Amino acid sequence: MKIVPAAALSAYILISSAVQAQTPVKHIQPNPNAAIATGVWSGDTFYLSGQLPDPVTPADTAKGTPAVYGDTKTQAMSVFKKIQSLLKDQGLDMKDVVKMTVFLAGDPAQGGKLDFAGMQAAYTQFFGTPEQPNKPARSAMQVAALVAPGTLLEVEVIAVKSK
Amino acid sequence: MKIVPAAALSAYILISSAVQAQTPVKHIQPNPNAAIATGVWSGDTFYLSGQLPDPVTPADTAKGTPAVYGDTKTQAMSVFKKIQSLLKDQGLDMKDVVKMTVFLAGDPAQGGKLDFAGMQAAYTQFFGTPEQPNKPARSAMQVAALVAPGTLLEVEVIAVKSK
Amino acid sequence: MKIVPAAALSAYILISSAVQAQTPVKHIQPNPNAAIATGVWSGDTFYLSGQLPDPVTPADTAKGTPAVYGDTKTQAMSVFKKIQSLLKDQGLDMKDVVKMTVFLAGDPAQGGKLDFAGMQAAYTQFFGTPEQPNKPARSAMQVAALVAPGTLLEVEVIAVKSK
Repeated sequence: MKIVPAAALSAYILISSAVQAQTPVKHIQPNPNAAIATGVWSGDTFYLSGQLPDPVTPADTAKGTPAVYGDTKTQAMSVFKKIQSLLKDQGLDMKDVVKMTVFLAGDPAQGGKLDFAGMQAAYTQFFGTPEQPNKPARSAMQVAALVAPGTLLEVEVIAVKSK
Repeated sequence: MKIVPAAALSAYILISSAVQAQTPVKHIQPNPNAAIATGVWSGDTFYLSGQLPDPVTPADTAKGTPAVYGDTKTQAMSVFKKIQSLLKDQGLDMKDVVKMTVFLAGDPAQGGKLDFAGMQAAYTQFFGTPEQPNKPARSAMQVAALVAPGTLLEVEVIAVKSK
Repeated sequence: MKIVPAAALSAYILISSAVQAQTPVKHIQPNPNAAIATGVWSGDTFYLSGQLPDPVTPADTAKGTPAVYGDTKTQAMSVFKKIQSLLKDQGLDMKDVVKMTVFLAGDPAQGGKLDFAGMQAAYTQFFGTPEQPNKPARSAMQVAALVAPGTLLEVEVIAVKSK
């Protein structure tokens, strides 16, 4: 009977120390030329950098033609596929996304307004489906511009490895 | 004397496994028609989706009139009341908000500029008061547009259930 | 042989209670006149409020001249130095930044476009250097306007005290 309290005390001391500064942090930065990390782990939480779409047709410097990215839905499909792939590299998937922020740029084909429906048409193929019913907390808005000319959305997510 | 180290070892093993993938995640998505979650719990952290104001006068499709939302202060009061109500549904309150992001749209009544004072007039009724002295970390800026025409701000928060 | 399971059970009970609502939250709000916190601790995670640059030349109300902030690189240097100083007040440093969001305003000197290169020229002095190789997850975009006229960027970070 005396033994359990002693053991519990030891356990309590260990737990108390565990509460402070027990968060392992891991920066995923495989590309030495990139200014930012692909993402960063903080405990079970993975912060993924904002993702821009890949172009449908890359820029051709010889011809002097810019990259072509397609419409908002096309770009959103590219972005969500990239996010899924980057999450899978970390042992995560779309079901693990807890928070998403969608930064949309005005679409010239929509008179400079955001193409919310185009973004949603891609989004709903990855979240809230029969196969993957989880939906993240999300904010979405139109910003003035994104960093890469021609891109119409940037998406960042926080994903969590759950028990 | 031998007993405590053995117990401590057991405790240590349990704690070590507790450090990895012990985060319970819960998606709060009561509305099957909504594309996003109301919010998502990750351990003690609750990510609430960005909240837009409720209209003062809803759209009338029969008359063909759009929703009327009021000025920035009116809309901010609506948004903060919604946030408080949604947090209470989760056993949280404004005191538990650790991070807030305020996305303001240009107010036509202010020449297309953001009405920061109007937002603050509502915000300060919920944060930093004698009854509720806690204030969140916050970022606030003007975006190009929000998703719902006529709305002048969207606010997202992260709240934490603290010990 | 009976002792260890009993101790382990005690430890398990303590750990189970530790998993829920064991997150200490601390609001860093030293200035009673500020509407927002400098930052908020949630366990090992520190949410820092969005930081705007300090002016190179403050506003002179007697002369009626506005604050002068300089170009994007100058402002970014001011912001990153402020962030570093505020993190150091909390026992943190740039290496501990896990997530960053950069809200850029259009630079009149760049025809109203964002000066991404100017921001990067300051950023790369603090992140991914030989002395401080860690890089955060980051999103960056141009917003319509920031709260303080003349400012060209606001930066928010999440930093984590790691083991």
